Amino acid sequence: MDSLQKYLKKLDAIFISTRANIVYLTGYNGFSEIERECFLLITKKKNYLITDRRYSEAIKKSVKGYSVIETGAHNFTKKNVSEFLKKNKIKKLGFEDNNLTVAEYNLLKKAAFLKPIDLSNIRIIKTKEEIKNIKLACKIGDQAFEFIMGKLKLGITEKQIEHEMVNFIKSKNADISFKPIVAYGKNSSIPHHQTGRDKLKKNQIVLLDFGINLNNYCSDMTRTIFFGSASTEFKRMHRTVLEAQSKAIEFLNSTIINHKSTTGKQIDMVARDYTIEQGYPDIIHSVGHGIGIEVHESPHLSPNSRDKIQAGMIFSIEPGIYLPNYGGVRIEDLVLVGKNGIEVITHSNRGIIEI
Amino acid sequence: MDSLQKYLKKLDAIFISTRANIVYLTGYNGFSEIERECFLLITKKKNYLITDRRYSEAIKKSVKGYSVIETGAHNFTKKNVSEFLKKNKIKKLGFEDNNLTVAEYNLLKKAAFLKPIDLSNIRIIKTKEEIKNIKLACKIGDQAFEFIMGKLKLGITEKQIEHEMVNFIKSKNADISFKPIVAYGKNSSIPHHQTGRDKLKKNQIVLLDFGINLNNYCSDMTRTIFFGSASTEFKRMHRTVLEAQSKAIEFLNSTIINHKSTTGKQIDMVARDYTIEQGYPDIIHSVGHGIGIEVHESPHLSPNSRDKIQAGMIFSIEPGIYLPNYGGVRIEDLVLVGKNGIEVITHSNRGIIEI
Repeated sequence: MDSLQKYLKKLDAIFISTRANIVYLTGYNGFSEIERECFLLITKKKNYLITDRRYSEAIKKSVKGYSVIETGAHNFTKKNVSEFLKKNKIKKLGFEDNNLTVAEYNLLKKAAFLKPIDLSNIRIIKTKEEIKNIKLACKIGDQAFEFIMGKLKLGITEKQIEHEMVNFIKSKNADISFKPIVAYGKNSSIPHHQTGRDKLKKNQIVLLDFGINLNNYCSDMTRTIFFGSASTEFKRMHRTVLEAQSKAIEFLNSTIINHKSTTGKQIDMVARDYTIEQGYPDIIHSVGHGIGIEVHESPHLSPNSRDKIQAGMIFSIEPGIYLPNYGGVRIEDLVLVGKNGIEVITHSNRGIIEI
Repeated sequence: MDSLQKYLKKLDAIFISTRANIVYLTGYNGFSEIERECFLLITKKKNYLITDRRYSEAIKKSVKGYSVIETGAHNFTKKNVSEFLKKNKIKKLGFEDNNLTVAEYNLLKKAAFLKPIDLSNIRIIKTKEEIKNIKLACKIGDQAFEFIMGKLKLGITEKQIEHEMVNFIKSKNADISFKPIVAYGKNSSIPHHQTGRDKLKKNQIVLLDFGINLNNYCSDMTRTIFFGSASTEFKRMHRTVLEAQSKAIEFLNSTIINHKSTTGKQIDMVARDYTIEQGYPDIIHSVGHGIGIEVHESPHLSPNSRDKIQAGMIFSIEPGIYLPNYGGVRIEDLVLVGKNGIEVITHSNRGIIEI
C-alpha cells in the first residue's frame, strides 16, 4: 500500500480497476477474470472495496483493511460510487487509463476530476513472500515436465498430454497459470498454437509451454524436445536458441555483477541479434516478460522496452525460432534478479532431449 | 456480419475490442481471455484482424474473410493502426465504449473521430448452430451432475469434487465454462463461494454450480442437494426456490404463448417477489442472465433490465436464498425462448435430492 501513497499527495483518491492489482492489494482472488466484479477506492484515510452482494459476505470475512461499498450486480457506478465520491468530497481521482473503459470513465467523470495514473509497475519488485511462491510454482513446473516426458508415446494426442499435465498439477494442489501449449511437428512453428487432436508421430518436435499458479503466483516455462532421433536441422535450431538464451542470461548477469544499469530492450537485443546472425528469422515475439500475479506483467524485454532491470524482478527469457511448415523451438526460463547476480529459478534440463 | 451493417451506414468503420465479439465474428478462440491480443476493424468493403506475429500464421490458416494487420506484441495502436486508418481515410470510427480502455481510446482518437456504439446485443439471438452447441453443452452438464452425485461421500473435499467434475467434463472432450463452485454447509450461503478444502460431513447442504464449454459455447446449471437426511428448514428453502423458479418459467412461457411482450425485469420480479413473500431475504443477485460465447451476456433478468424477451434467446433462471451462517439454496436452469413457447434445456432433477 506504501507504493500508492506517492500518488495520493496530488490526488484525493485512487480508483483501481485492474484485477491483478486488486488481488495484489487485497490478497483476494475470487473475482472473475473476465467480468467487472470489483474495484478499489484508496483514499488518504481509508480503503474501500466496491463489489456486489454476491461477494460482500466473503469479502467481509476474508479481506482485512477494506470497507465494502455494495453495488447492484453488473452496474457499479450508476449511483453508489458517484454518490459516495460526492459525499466524501473526493474531487481529484486517479484512475488506471490502461484498464478503465471509456464507459466507466464517462460515469466517473460526472462525479470527479479524473487523472490517469500508471500502476503497471506497482508489482514489478517482488517481496520475499512473492519470490517464495513463484519459486514453489517453478518447482512444481519442473516436476510436471519430468512427469510429462514419461507420458510421451506414439499416438498420444496434444490434448491428452495437456490433460495429463493439468491433472498432475492439480494433484499437487496447484493450478495452471494458463492453458498449456502442446505443439507437435509443424504446429510448433505457431508460437501460440492451440493444443489440438493431432497424434504424436515418430520423429516429431514436441513443444511444451506451461505454467503453474500457486497461492496467486505464476510460473512459466517452455521446453522443446524431440520424439525420436533429432534431425540435424532441429539440433541446429535448438543449439541456436539455447545459445541465444544463454547469451542473454550471461549479459544480464554481468551487468548485475558489475552494477551497471540495463534495460529490457538491451537483453532482448542480445538474444534477437544472435538469432539473426545465425541466419534465422527475427524472433516474432518479445524475448521476455515479467511474471507474478499475472503470467505477463512488467518488466518487458522487447525491442521497445525502456524498463530498467532492478533487484527483485522476476522475468522470463525465451528466445524462439519459428519456421513455417517445418516447426519451431522455444526455450523459456525464469530468472530472479538479485543485488549481486541472477538466479535461474526453473531447473529442467535445457539441452537436447530425445525420447 | 449482417448485424454490423446498420452501424456502417453512419460510420466509415467499426473497431471491435470485446473478445467474445471477436470469437463470435471470426470463430477463432485462441486469444488470451485476459490480455489484449486482437482487435477487429470492419469497414464497408473489407474486414481486418489486428494481431501480433505470435498469432498471424495461425489466423491466416484458420480464419476466413479477414486480412491481418500485424502489430508488435503488446503495443497495438502506437503506429500500425493509426497509420492504417489515415491511409484508408477512415475518419468516423465506431468503438465499443463498454470495452475499449481510456488509453486505447486516446491513441485511436489521434487518427479518427470516435463514436461509441453498443454491440452488447449482437449475440443476443442465437442461430440454430449456436442453439445446437449450447444444448450439447447442457447435455454434458446433465451427465456431469449424474456422475458427481456418485462421488459425494463422507470426507471428500470441495476441491476433490471440483477435480472429479473437471476430469469428467474433459473426458467428454469438452471444457469448463467457469471454475465450478462446490459449497458445503454454511459455504453455500456465499453465492460465489471459492471452492476450498472443507470436507463433506453428514447432514450438509451441497451446492454445485458449474458449466460446460463446447465449441466456444457455454452452459450453466446449479443444483443444491442434501448429504444426509434433509432438515425441515432446508426443505422449506428448497421448495421456495423451486417454486420461485417455476413461477418465473411459467410466467415467461405464458407471455410467449400469448405473444405478449415481456422484459428481463418482469421475469426477475416474479421470482424475487415470491421469495420475499415467503419471508426470505431479497435475492442478492440477478435472477438470470443470457448465455452463449460468454457465461454471462445479454439479456439480463434483473430489477433494472429493460431487455425485451425474444425468440432465439437463451438465458438462465436462477433464484436463490442465502442465510448467512446457515447455508443457501440456488436452482439454475437454462431456457430457450421459441416463437410459441419455451424449452428448458437443462434436464437434471430439480427436486429435493438426499444422498
